Amino acid sequence: MSFSPFDSAIFRKLYGDPETSALFSDSAEVRAMLLVEGMLAKVQGELGVIPEDSAFFIQRSSMEVQIDPAALADGMARDGVPVPALVEAFRKAMEAPEHAQYVHWGATSQDIMDTALVLRLRQFVTLVEKRLESLEGALTGLARETRDVVMAARTRSQIATPTTFGAVVAGWVLPLRRHRERLARLRGRLLVVSLSGASGTASALGGKAGETERALAEALKLGVAEGPWHTARDSIGELAALLSLIAGSLGKIGQDVILLSQSEVAEIDTGKGGGSSTMPQKSNPVAAETLVTMGRFTAGIVGQIHQSQIHAQQRDGTAWAQEWLVLPQICIATGVALQHAITLAGNLQPNPGRMLSNIAATSGTIFAEAASFALAEHMPRPEAQEKVKQAVHSALRDGKHLRDVLEATTDADVDWNAVFDATRQTGRATDIVGSL
Amino acid sequence: MSFSPFDSAIFRKLYGDPETSALFSDSAEVRAMLLVEGMLAKVQGELGVIPEDSAFFIQRSSMEVQIDPAALADGMARDGVPVPALVEAFRKAMEAPEHAQYVHWGATSQDIMDTALVLRLRQFVTLVEKRLESLEGALTGLARETRDVVMAARTRSQIATPTTFGAVVAGWVLPLRRHRERLARLRGRLLVVSLSGASGTASALGGKAGETERALAEALKLGVAEGPWHTARDSIGELAALLSLIAGSLGKIGQDVILLSQSEVAEIDTGKGGGSSTMPQKSNPVAAETLVTMGRFTAGIVGQIHQSQIHAQQRDGTAWAQEWLVLPQICIATGVALQHAITLAGNLQPNPGRMLSNIAATSGTIFAEAASFALAEHMPRPEAQEKVKQAVHSALRDGKHLRDVLEATTDADVDWNAVFDATRQTGRATDIVGSL
Amino acid sequence: MSFSPFDSAIFRKLYGDPETSALFSDSAEVRAMLLVEGMLAKVQGELGVIPEDSAFFIQRSSMEVQIDPAALADGMARDGVPVPALVEAFRKAMEAPEHAQYVHWGATSQDIMDTALVLRLRQFVTLVEKRLESLEGALTGLARETRDVVMAARTRSQIATPTTFGAVVAGWVLPLRRHRERLARLRGRLLVVSLSGASGTASALGGKAGETERALAEALKLGVAEGPWHTARDSIGELAALLSLIAGSLGKIGQDVILLSQSEVAEIDTGKGGGSSTMPQKSNPVAAETLVTMGRFTAGIVGQIHQSQIHAQQRDGTAWAQEWLVLPQICIATGVALQHAITLAGNLQPNPGRMLSNIAATSGTIFAEAASFALAEHMPRPEAQEKVKQAVHSALRDGKHLRDVLEATTDADVDWNAVFDATRQTGRATDIVGSL
Amino acid sequence: MSFSPFDSAIFRKLYGDPETSALFSDSAEVRAMLLVEGMLAKVQGELGVIPEDSAFFIQRSSMEVQIDPAALADGMARDGVPVPALVEAFRKAMEAPEHAQYVHWGATSQDIMDTALVLRLRQFVTLVEKRLESLEGALTGLARETRDVVMAARTRSQIATPTTFGAVVAGWVLPLRRHRERLARLRGRLLVVSLSGASGTASALGGKAGETERALAEALKLGVAEGPWHTARDSIGELAALLSLIAGSLGKIGQDVILLSQSEVAEIDTGKGGGSSTMPQKSNPVAAETLVTMGRFTAGIVGQIHQSQIHAQQRDGTAWAQEWLVLPQICIATGVALQHAITLAGNLQPNPGRMLSNIAATSGTIFAEAASFALAEHMPRPEAQEKVKQAVHSALRDGKHLRDVLEATTDADVDWNAVFDATRQTGRATDIVGSL
Repeated sequence: MSFSPFDSAIFRKLYGDPETSALFSDSAEVRAMLLVEGMLAKVQGELGVIPEDSAFFIQRSSMEVQIDPAALADGMARDGVPVPALVEAFRKAMEAPEHAQYVHWGATSQDIMDTALVLRLRQFVTLVEKRLESLEGALTGLARETRDVVMAARTRSQIATPTTFGAVVAGWVLPLRRHRERLARLRGRLLVVSLSGASGTASALGGKAGETERALAEALKLGVAEGPWHTARDSIGELAALLSLIAGSLGKIGQDVILLSQSEVAEIDTGKGGGSSTMPQKSNPVAAETLVTMGRFTAGIVGQIHQSQIHAQQRDGTAWAQEWLVLPQICIATGVALQHAITLAGNLQPNPGRMLSNIAATSGTIFAEAASFALAEHMPRPEAQEKVKQAVHSALRDGKHLRDVLEATTDADVDWNAVFDATRQTGRATDIVGSL
Repeated sequence: MSFSPFDSAIFRKLYGDPETSALFSDSAEVRAMLLVEGMLAKVQGELGVIPEDSAFFIQRSSMEVQIDPAALADGMARDGVPVPALVEAFRKAMEAPEHAQYVHWGATSQDIMDTALVLRLRQFVTLVEKRLESLEGALTGLARETRDVVMAARTRSQIATPTTFGAVVAGWVLPLRRHRERLARLRGRLLVVSLSGASGTASALGGKAGETERALAEALKLGVAEGPWHTARDSIGELAALLSLIAGSLGKIGQDVILLSQSEVAEIDTGKGGGSSTMPQKSNPVAAETLVTMGRFTAGIVGQIHQSQIHAQQRDGTAWAQEWLVLPQICIATGVALQHAITLAGNLQPNPGRMLSNIAATSGTIFAEAASFALAEHMPRPEAQEKVKQAVHSALRDGKHLRDVLEATTDADVDWNAVFDATRQTGRATDIVGSL
Repeated sequence: MSFSPFDSAIFRKLYGDPETSALFSDSAEVRAMLLVEGMLAKVQGELGVIPEDSAFFIQRSSMEVQIDPAALADGMARDGVPVPALVEAFRKAMEAPEHAQYVHWGATSQDIMDTALVLRLRQFVTLVEKRLESLEGALTGLARETRDVVMAARTRSQIATPTTFGAVVAGWVLPLRRHRERLARLRGRLLVVSLSGASGTASALGGKAGETERALAEALKLGVAEGPWHTARDSIGELAALLSLIAGSLGKIGQDVILLSQSEVAEIDTGKGGGSSTMPQKSNPVAAETLVTMGRFTAGIVGQIHQSQIHAQQRDGTAWAQEWLVLPQICIATGVALQHAITLAGNLQPNPGRMLSNIAATSGTIFAEAASFALAEHMPRPEAQEKVKQAVHSALRDGKHLRDVLEATTDADVDWNAVFDATRQTGRATDIVGSL
Repeated sequence: MSFSPFDSAIFRKLYGDPETSALFSDSAEVRAMLLVEGMLAKVQGELGVIPEDSAFFIQRSSMEVQIDPAALADGMARDGVPVPALVEAFRKAMEAPEHAQYVHWGATSQDIMDTALVLRLRQFVTLVEKRLESLEGALTGLARETRDVVMAARTRSQIATPTTFGAVVAGWVLPLRRHRERLARLRGRLLVVSLSGASGTASALGGKAGETERALAEALKLGVAEGPWHTARDSIGELAALLSLIAGSLGKIGQDVILLSQSEVAEIDTGKGGGSSTMPQKSNPVAAETLVTMGRFTAGIVGQIHQSQIHAQQRDGTAWAQEWLVLPQICIATGVALQHAITLAGNLQPNPGRMLSNIAATSGTIFAEAASFALAEHMPRPEAQEKVKQAVHSALRDGKHLRDVLEATTDADVDWNAVFDATRQTGRATDIVGSL
C-alpha cells in the first residue's frame, strides 16, 4: 500500500498503469539485472573470456534462481547500488562457487543497472507506441465521423469563429503523429547496452572488451552505444522530455474536453462522469481531468531528469539516484494518460445540437469576421471592419442579431445567407480532417 | 513492491522513511477519513444536528470498522474521489441503516479528505520538528567539539582562507533553527479543519454549520480556518516550500561532506562508506549523496504544488490531484533526508591532521589575505595587495613558501608568525560556534 | 530593448512592473553597492578601524561618484563578481589614493552584493505589502458590495450549488491576508546585513568584526544575521517561495475570472478586454490571463532558487549565479501580477442577471443537494438521495424542471419554495463575507 | 539596463550572448513580423487574392518602414498581442490606404507572431549547430592531443581506476554529436510556417488558403506544417527540451572542470581564472561555473514550456504568454553556455604531472581492481578479491604501498609491473578517443 496514487490500492484504478508499473517493480528489476548478468556470462563464455561451462551454468542459473528483492536492501543501503548484494546473493544461490566466481566478470554495477533499465524501457517504448497508435486510430475515426459537425471555436476563452468538431479532434491527432516519429528516432539512441566497467574504460573486461560489448548487445537485441554512457545521460533526458511532451499533448485534449463539457457549454458528453458525494446532478469529467493532471505532473518533474544531466566525473551518486526517483514516475504518468485518452476517445459524444445552439446564442457575432471580409469586397477593408465593429456593438447593446443590424445599415450586395451560415464558414476544417 | 525507491523493497532502507510513508499509506488514509466522519457525527449529535444515538453509533463504528482500501478503488476511479465509496462502504459495514444515513451529514468529499490529510500532516510536522531538534543537537555538539579544529575554507572550489570545522558545522545548524521557527508559525495556518460543504458555503450543514465546524475542530484538536480553504491552498504550498528548504539545507550539508571526503581532500570520514562491486578501496559517501539527491528532488518538485495553487472555481479536480501526486513525496523525501542527516552527524569524523596538511600544501598562499592586511599597516593597502600578489606568483612559480618570498622582499616589521599561523587566522570562527 | 517581456519596449506595459524592475536595474545595483561600501567605511571610521577622515571621504564619495555599470563588465566577466571592478573604479574615481585604500576594508564581494540586494529587497517587500493591502481593500469592498449576489458555484467544472459572488471574492481575499502575515515574519529573517569576509569568519575585519557588523546593520537599518549567510540561503528561498505563493493566489483569481467571463458563462465583465486583429466581437480577458501566466511562471521557476540552496562549501559560484538569474524575475512577475490584480479588482463587473439565468438554466438541478436534505427530513437520507437522483435523471431526460418532477413524485411536506430559492440556499456565504 | 544578467550592462559579458539576444530583441521581432506581413501580401498578390499592385506596395513598404517598438506598447497592453497595433501602425506608415487595407489579409495575430518566431529560431538553430560543431572540433582536438595522458577516474567522488584525460574529453564530445542529430531532425518539425487564421481553419483566407500557405512557406523558405499548430506546441517543447539537454551536457563539462581544478586536485588549469576582491591567490573557474549555472537554469525552466503544451481550445492567452517569457531565456542560456564551452575548450590545460602524482598518492590502491583480476588468474575470484581487499586495508592502515603488501602476502606469479603501471590499465580509453 503505497504513498503514491500510482500504485495505491485506493487510487490506482484511476491513476495507475499496471503494465508500466510492472516494468519498474522490484521483481522486474531483479529479473532484468539477472538476465544481463546471465547474458554477459554467456557471451563471455563464447568469447573464451570465462570458462564455457561456467558461462553455461551461470546463464541457466540466472533464469532459474529466485532472489528476494528485500534481501538486497541491506546491501543497497550500504553501497548505494543493489548490484554488489545481487551478485553476492546470486553467487550464493548458485551453490557452485567454481562457476559463481565468473559472475559479473569485468562489469561494474552501473553496466548492469543501466542495461537492465534499457531492457525494460524497450518494453515501455513499445507499449507507448502501441497506445499512441491506438489513440490515433480512435481519434482519427472520431474526427472523420464528426468532420461536418459545426461548432464554435474559442480563442482566449471567447467564442471566435465557426470550426468543426472534426477539425478540433484532428488538431489533437497531429502532435501524436510527431510523437511517434520522435519515439522511433529515439529508439536507436536509447536502446543500447552499457558495458564500460568501473570507470568507463572497460579495463577489467580485458582485451576482448569491445567484442564482449558487441556480443552482449546482439544477445540482448540492443544496440551498441557510440561510447560509454555512464555519465552521458542525454538519451534518458530525451526520453523524459518526449514523454512529458506526449503527456502534455494529452493534457491539451483533457483541457479541451473539460471546457467543452462545462455545464454552460455542454457540447460534449464524456460518457460516464464521476459522481459527487452529495450532488446527484454532477457528472465530473474525471478522465479528462486526469489527462491534465498527468500533463502538468510530467511537465513539473521533467526538469529534474535534465538536472541530472550534470553528472559529475565518471559516476555521480547524486545525479544517478535522481533518475531513479523520477524516471519511473514520468513513464507511469504518461502510461496512465495514454490509457485514459484511449478510453476517453471511445467515450466522447459530441452534442451537435448544443453546438448549434451555442452558435445561435451569439446573435450572429461569431460571423463578424466573415461579415467584415464579405463587406470588404464592397468597400475598403478598414471601413468594412469599422462598420462591422459598430454593428456588433449595436447588436450586443440592443439585443439584436448582427445580421439584422448589418442588413439595416448597409446596402452592399452581400450574400448574407452565406455569411451567416456556419456550415459555409469553416474554411479548411474539412481538409484538415481529410489530411489525417 | 513499488516503482518508487521510497518504498521499493530493494531501495527503501536507503531511500525510505517508514514513519512518514506510514502516514500516507492507504490504511492510514482510510483510518483518518473514518476518524473525521466519526468525529463529525459525534459533534453533530452533540449539537442536535443528527440524532444522538446515531451519532454515538457512527462514531463508535468509525473506530471499529475495517474497510479494505482496495474496495474503494472502483468508486475512486468512477468519482475521482474515494469518499463516496468510503461512505457507502462504511454505511454498509455498520449494518444499521437507521444510523448509517447520518454519516457524512452535510459534508463534502473534500472536507473529509483535507481534514484527514491535516490530521496526518500534524503527525508529520511533529516528526520533522523532533528530527530537526535531534539534528541540531547532534550538529551543535559536533561544532563545539571541533570548534578549534582548523581547516581551509574553500570558496568557488578554491582554497580561500583558514576557518574551523566547528564554524563550518555551525553554518549547517543556523538554517535549521530558522526552519523550526518557520514550522512553528506554519502550524497555525496549516493544522485547521475543513468543513465547508459542496461549494464552500456549508449550505447542507444547516444553520449550525459554524458551530459544527468549531466543535469538530475542537474534537480533533485542530484549528478553525479563517474561511473555506477548498480552493485556497496556500498553506499546503507553504508546507511544501518549507520542506523543500529544509531538504535543501540538508543537501548543502551533503554536498560539503562529499567534497570534504573526496580522495584528494580526505578531511572527513563519513563512518562507513558504500562499497563498489569491483573496487575494494572505494568508500562511497552514500548518506551524503542521498542528502544532495533529496534536496534536488524536493526543489525539483515543489513548483508543482505551487502550480496547483491555481485551483479553478470552487473545486478543481486537476489541481487537487496534482497535490495528491506530489505532497507525499516531498514529505517522504524530507523525512529521508532528516534521518540520514542525523545518522551522518553522528558518524562524521574530521581528520585534523589532514586539514593541517592541506593547509600546509598551499605553501602559505592561504594566508595571502592575512599577509596583505598585515602589510597594509606599513604601506598603502593597494601597494600591500600588489606586493602580496607578486609574492604569491613567485611562490607558486618557484615552488617556494609565501612566507619566505615575503620575508625576502619586504623589511616591514610584520609579525609573520602570527600571519602564517592558521590558528590565529580564523577570525570569528570560535564566536560563531559559541553563538549556537 | 530586451529579450524579456518584463522589460521589452513592446511588451512591458502589459508584462512589466517599472517600480520593481528599477530595483534590479544595473544603476540601482551599483548605487546600492556603493551605499554599502560607503556605510561600511563610515562605521569603520567611527570604530577606529580605519582613519576617520578617510571614512568620511569615502562615504561622501560613495554618494557622489558616478560609475558607469558598463565599466564593470570586463571585471565581472573576468572575476565572476562585479565587486573587484567596482572597488577599483570607485577608488579611481575618488582621486584620493590615501583615502581610497580604505574602501572595502576587510569585506568580501559577497558581503557587498548580498547587503546591496537586501537593501533593494526591503523596498520590494514594502511594495508588495502595500500592493497586497491595496488589493485586499479593493477585493474586500467588492465582496461586500456583492455579498448578496447569488451565483452558481462550479466544482470540477460543473455547476454545483448556489453561492454568492461576494463569497467567491472573499475566498480570493483570505489567502492574501495570510501572505501578509508571512511577509511580516519573513522581514526579520531576510532583511539582515551580510558582513562575514572572505570565508565567513570575518578574519580580515579584525578584532572589531562583530561591532562593525552591528554598526553597519544599524546604519543601514537592517538586522544582524544570526550568523554568516554567504552559504545559508534559506531566507532567499523563503522569499521566492512566498512570492510564488502570492502569484499563485492571484493566478487563481485570474483563472476564475477567465472562466466566469467565457462567452457562454458571461457572469462577469472585466472592464475592457483585449481586441483581436480580426474578430471585432472579441473581448479577451487579458489582465486575468496575465495573472494566470505570472502564477504559472513563478511556480515554474521557484524550484531553481531552491536548487541553489545546495550551495557548496564557503561560496559556490554556480548556485549563487543561479539566484541572480532567477530572483529578479520572481520579484518582477509577482509585482506584475499584483498590479494587474489591483486594476482588475477595480474593473470587475458581476452580471447578476446572467448569474440568475445561468442558475435557471439548470432546470433546478443546482438545488438537488438541497432537495435531498429537505426530503431527508421525511425519509431516510439514502432514500431521499435516491429519489432526488431519479428525479434529476427524469428532469434532464424529459426537459422538465426538477421541482416539477419532485412535486409530482413525492407527497412529503417539503417547503419547495425554500428549496428552490437560490437566495435561501447560500449557507454561510454571507458570513464568509462578513468575516473579512 | 536590464534586471537580467543576460543583458545587464554589468553582467552581460559573462552571462550574455549578443547574437542570440539580438534575435529576441524588440526590433528583431518587429522586423520579422513585418517581413511575414510583407511576404504574405506578396504571395496573395501573386495568387490573385489581393490586388497585385497593393501586394507589391505592401511588401516593399514592409522592408522600408520604420516602426518604433514602443509605439506598439499600448496596443499590446490592450490586446494581449502586438499584432493589431503593428498592423495599424504599418498601415498608417504606408500612407496609402488603398493598398494598406490589404495588409494582414485573412491572417490572425498568432500566424504572424509564430511565423516571425520561426524565422528567428531558424537563425538560432543554425547558430547552435555551428557552435556545436566548433565545440566538437575543439574538444575532439583536445581529446586526441591528450589521448595518452593518464589520470585517475573518480566515481562517486572517490578515486576509482586509471583512465586518460583524452577519454574523459571524448565522453564530453559524444553527447554533442547526438545533439546535432536531434537538432537536424527537429528542423523539419519546427521550421514551418503558421497560417491558419482566427481559429485554425483559415476561413478568412478564402478558397486559396492552402495555396497561400504553401506559397508563403516557399517564399520564406520554411516548411508547410502538417496542420494548424496554433495550439499544438510540441515542436516548441521539443526545441526547449533539446536546448536544455545541450546546456546540461555542457554543465557536465563545467562540473568536471570545476572538480578537476580544485586546489587539492589541480589536474587542469582553466587558463585565466577569476580574481577575488581580497584573496590574490584565487583563480576561480568562472567559465566552468557558468556552464553549470546555465545547465541548471535551463533544466529549471524547461518544464514551463512543457506546462504550456496544455494550451486550451483554439488559442490560450495564458499558455502562449508563458512561452514568451521562457523560450528566449532558454535560447540565450544555451547560447551563453556554448560560447563559454568553446572558449574553455581552447583554454583547458591538463597537468599530466599532477595527474600522475595524484595517482601515486593513492599508494597503489587505484590498481586494486586490476590486482584482483590479475590474482584471479591464479585463484578463484572471490578469494582474489578478498585477498586484495585485505591488502588494501593493510596498505591504508600501515601507510604502505599496495604492491608491497601484495608482493609480501602472495606468491602467485603475477606481473606486478603491469598491474601497477597506470599506462597499461586504461582499458579502452585510447579506442574511445579513436572513435571520435
